[in-house]
Amino acid sequence: MYFHIESGNPKTREQIRRVFAEAYEIGKANTARGKVADYIPELAKADKNAFGLCMINEEGESIAFGDSETRFSMQSICKVVILALALKTKGFETTFSHVMMEPSGDSFNSILKLDTRSNLPFNPMINAGAIETVSLLEGDLSFEEMMAYARSLCLDHDICLDEAVYRSEFETGDRNRAIAYLLKSKSVLVGDPERTLDLYFKMCSLSVSARSLAGLGLVISNDGIDPFTGKLLIDPEHVRTIKSIMFTCGMYDYSGKFGVRVGVPGKSGVGGGMMCAARGPMGIGLYGPALDAFGNSSGAVKAMSHISKELKLHVFDY
Amino acid sequence: MYFHIESGNPKTREQIRRVFAEAYEIGKANTARGKVADYIPELAKADKNAFGLCMINEEGESIAFGDSETRFSMQSICKVVILALALKTKGFETTFSHVMMEPSGDSFNSILKLDTRSNLPFNPMINAGAIETVSLLEGDLSFEEMMAYARSLCLDHDICLDEAVYRSEFETGDRNRAIAYLLKSKSVLVGDPERTLDLYFKMCSLSVSARSLAGLGLVISNDGIDPFTGKLLIDPEHVRTIKSIMFTCGMYDYSGKFGVRVGVPGKSGVGGGMMCAARGPMGIGLYGPALDAFGNSSGAVKAMSHISKELKLHVFDY
Amino acid sequence: MYFHIESGNPKTREQIRRVFAEAYEIGKANTARGKVADYIPELAKADKNAFGLCMINEEGESIAFGDSETRFSMQSICKVVILALALKTKGFETTFSHVMMEPSGDSFNSILKLDTRSNLPFNPMINAGAIETVSLLEGDLSFEEMMAYARSLCLDHDICLDEAVYRSEFETGDRNRAIAYLLKSKSVLVGDPERTLDLYFKMCSLSVSARSLAGLGLVISNDGIDPFTGKLLIDPEHVRTIKSIMFTCGMYDYSGKFGVRVGVPGKSGVGGGMMCAARGPMGIGLYGPALDAFGNSSGAVKAMSHISKELKLHVFDY
Amino acid sequence: MYFHIESGNPKTREQIRRVFAEAYEIGKANTARGKVADYIPELAKADKNAFGLCMINEEGESIAFGDSETRFSMQSICKVVILALALKTKGFETTFSHVMMEPSGDSFNSILKLDTRSNLPFNPMINAGAIETVSLLEGDLSFEEMMAYARSLCLDHDICLDEAVYRSEFETGDRNRAIAYLLKSKSVLVGDPERTLDLYFKMCSLSVSARSLAGLGLVISNDGIDPFTGKLLIDPEHVRTIKSIMFTCGMYDYSGKFGVRVGVPGKSGVGGGMMCAARGPMGIGLYGPALDAFGNSSGAVKAMSHISKELKLHVFDY
Repeated sequence: MYFHIESGNPKTREQIRRVFAEAYEIGKANTARGKVADYIPELAKADKNAFGLCMINEEGESIAFGDSETRFSMQSICKVVILALALKTKGFETTFSHVMMEPSGDSFNSILKLDTRSNLPFNPMINAGAIETVSLLEGDLSFEEMMAYARSLCLDHDICLDEAVYRSEFETGDRNRAIAYLLKSKSVLVGDPERTLDLYFKMCSLSVSARSLAGLGLVISNDGIDPFTGKLLIDPEHVRTIKSIMFTCGMYDYSGKFGVRVGVPGKSGVGGGMMCAARGPMGIGLYGPALDAFGNSSGAVKAMSHISKELKLHVFDY
Repeated sequence: MYFHIESGNPKTREQIRRVFAEAYEIGKANTARGKVADYIPELAKADKNAFGLCMINEEGESIAFGDSETRFSMQSICKVVILALALKTKGFETTFSHVMMEPSGDSFNSILKLDTRSNLPFNPMINAGAIETVSLLEGDLSFEEMMAYARSLCLDHDICLDEAVYRSEFETGDRNRAIAYLLKSKSVLVGDPERTLDLYFKMCSLSVSARSLAGLGLVISNDGIDPFTGKLLIDPEHVRTIKSIMFTCGMYDYSGKFGVRVGVPGKSGVGGGMMCAARGPMGIGLYGPALDAFGNSSGAVKAMSHISKELKLHVFDY
Repeated sequence: MYFHIESGNPKTREQIRRVFAEAYEIGKANTARGKVADYIPELAKADKNAFGLCMINEEGESIAFGDSETRFSMQSICKVVILALALKTKGFETTFSHVMMEPSGDSFNSILKLDTRSNLPFNPMINAGAIETVSLLEGDLSFEEMMAYARSLCLDHDICLDEAVYRSEFETGDRNRAIAYLLKSKSVLVGDPERTLDLYFKMCSLSVSARSLAGLGLVISNDGIDPFTGKLLIDPEHVRTIKSIMFTCGMYDYSGKFGVRVGVPGKSGVGGGMMCAARGPMGIGLYGPALDAFGNSSGAVKAMSHISKELKLHVFDY
Repeated sequence: MYFHIESGNPKTREQIRRVFAEAYEIGKANTARGKVADYIPELAKADKNAFGLCMINEEGESIAFGDSETRFSMQSICKVVILALALKTKGFETTFSHVMMEPSGDSFNSILKLDTRSNLPFNPMINAGAIETVSLLEGDLSFEEMMAYARSLCLDHDICLDEAVYRSEFETGDRNRAIAYLLKSKSVLVGDPERTLDLYFKMCSLSVSARSLAGLGLVISNDGIDPFTGKLLIDPEHVRTIKSIMFTCGMYDYSGKFGVRVGVPGKSGVGGGMMCAARGPMGIGLYGPALDAFGNSSGAVKAMSHISKELKLHVFDY
């Protein structure tokens, strides 16, 4: 029996398992070169040496190594859930009349372009774009509804709010407050800034594992369909949009490099998580809180490079 | 017999021809909404209503409509040739120690980030990046050698220098001079600024047709191999890099939108050309000098949207 | 009897009165070329054609024309009061460890430099600088104490809070909120952002007249001493600092031009007020809510040009 | 006999001499804290410990200490000569239709605002502004005529071109080339970029001493009149303009602080020179090639602070 990764290059289950085992070793070895985020105090408590990964395919088979069940906060990876939710609730046109879809070349928390180039945030993967997107939803959806959607997308019904992280986000979220009020001052932010920020901080504080992220990657790589229930969770056209934006904007200032070197749509978070939606369909979740200079898990980047190369997952290896 | 566009969704030759015919009509109708570039005086002489497109597949079959043989200057599309040449001549590591591979979110001719974020140009598809890349080659290659490489990549041995455009570029190229000297002042530019600029202006002035661009797209989509001679023109790993960078940075400030809406690696030029490397393998060249606000041919963008949608060419439709 | 404007060029009281009468006519005629501020809705209610001016000298003699008693909100002119209060309460070193004293070349409400050049606001005359300065005082002084100081500096005990303007400021102050939270996120803002903003909005909403501003100008031009009570209100060294900063930063993006053309330390506000501290000592207050493109009262700028030229008040005419 | 510094506070010649002697000691002691400029190789050859100052009054009396006769290149101080020459040759309106008069808040060699805020350089004291101003004159005046004007303004007929510095400027002037070509690309630069740059580099390379700078300061402080010949060298209205611009923009990013702490119109250069036009009239020239972080002579700033404080030269001490 084969994993359906690449029709022209079938690999046995054992070969695939070996690739992930090697990737785990590579990633684990690279944790030493990273640094745990500390700008949100609660994040600083993570174990710098932790590393884990998990792959799930459409038949429900999974391969997991290391700290694949450890819980951590979703952080920026929630931006993918928020974007999916906005597309589902408001549609493509409305969503993208509030946020653009261009890579910005600036830091994820930059205010610069908002004040010089455009009133609209450059894309939904930077803080300004995600906050704007949440503001679109703020009047329609409760946090519980948003969390429920995150649970279904991640194929993980145990996802819940990490209260300690949420409080830490709330207390140290002044830069995000600045962004929200700047958007409000430009009449771009739709809802109430404080309620919007509260929802955003809560979504960032959802507690996931590498396995949950593999689930999210699987649904996205499976055209938005939960392969186990057959339920359509994201419209396939929206999936294409989400993948494209993840490809161009998903890895902070390393997005271009990740596109060249790994070539798989992915999204990382400063909590140490990384989620990739690879061909197969196949979802890959990684966790390593030691971050590189770009804010991506240093182990996860190296591990994904190995996996993409060995399994020929680069989208331009078609 | 079938065009091998999509294994799961074969189309007859006639169906494919009809898609291109429709795309031609859509593109032609959209020329009215664009504006011919005039910042280089020679470009302003183009026929605003001209429009043409050409597709070539690996078996040498082609479909062409409208002004598919009209000659125009390559402009920014030469950046793809320059990048391929740098990768071939200097290798991946050396090339990318001189230019980054991140989308910038700024205009193609911006100086801003060079003076605030990084001494290295953000990517090889903006002017600063292309000029830097040419400077790497300036000591090793003559213009004639560069043109010869462009001819082979485009499967078009009639490509030559448009002297009038070149003179016009040279005379009005002060912003590019500013970029070259700024790079020199940072010890980033490798070669002589004036010789570098001369080569860059000449490469921008290479005279191509929609058919030549289809040739270039075909070679790139065929993993760098000329399908008719079997000759390897670009290393397959370099092809992957080029496609990734075209995907994230190929359409100026519209790159993100093009990635979402069309989803095919492409590159446009202010001369009105657009080149796409689609699955198949299939090369598509388009020409329409009436440009939209982003500097892309307004007809070509619309035509490619139609083609991508009908033939399911979006890279995330896998 | 003479006004002591210029030892080498004494003018009779009548000559001086004529200069101010001419200035009034010039300023009044120029109101037609300006536009009342409307970004704070309450400001939009001002009479576009209103114009008035008032001069007071150290002997208490005053010359007034037009709407010199009309009340309007102080707006940015309160930044001078705030700076004086910070220097008095915290001293020079502490104050300027929180805000720089460099002209910024950007708009009064810009966020740009805060995010690119320096964590400290460039000077106390831009919003970020004034908000930071208020934050320094927030724990020590109540609004009532600040208003009391404003009253004594302006020689006007009728100054009170314009509740309607304050509410309007509060409701539309999102950009200032963004600035405060950005400063907080950088650990630069000292006090509580909301209490700081409340104080700042209240100070901006103090209701003054051209006569009150003439009073403020007189105290500043008289080395910080109330000429009628002899009381020292601002330390003379602080007065020098305040005048220097008014000279380089007092008139928004027109500060350099005002320095060349008028050459008198001054401060304007978008409520239409302008306050100048001229040699003599002499305080000049002007009011004209029709603003020019820089945000200064268009009538006041022209009137002050005339006064400075005729009475030789330019500081570099020594 | 008295120096006429301050009518209300006459000092004996001996008292004044002592102030300058103290200032020399303070300045000399501060050279240790600075660093000689090395971005132009020729400048790096200066003696880090050198320090000298010279004061000249309208009666031709002078006080000099230390390296007051050492020759060094004028560098940015030539911007004052260039501005005076443009005002004389082209008049106020024409000159300021090509360059603004606002402090920029950016580095002297910044390109940022040129590409984001305004096509016109912010003021004639930054490189872009000085280059633009030279371009205005390039068609009308030869270098010899410009040098002749510099000689007369500095009361020093021995000023000549330092060929070694000029060659060094020329060879390392790529950033200034970038500025010139950017201005040209915006159709702002009037003359030929290369000829303009050549003139600018030559003016920067004029060889002066602290005594020459004292001469320049004296002429400016004496309303543009050479006190020894009675000849009008700069129109008094232009002098006022020059002093105002020196006050707001003369000391790079330290201009605001210098205005507050010293309060005398001045201009510094990276060659280590500083020129001040103080009341009296009195010209003060200083030389100390060890520069502080802002690019001003660290000894000269400290020495001028002492002189201004002791002799009450601050313009807002009137």
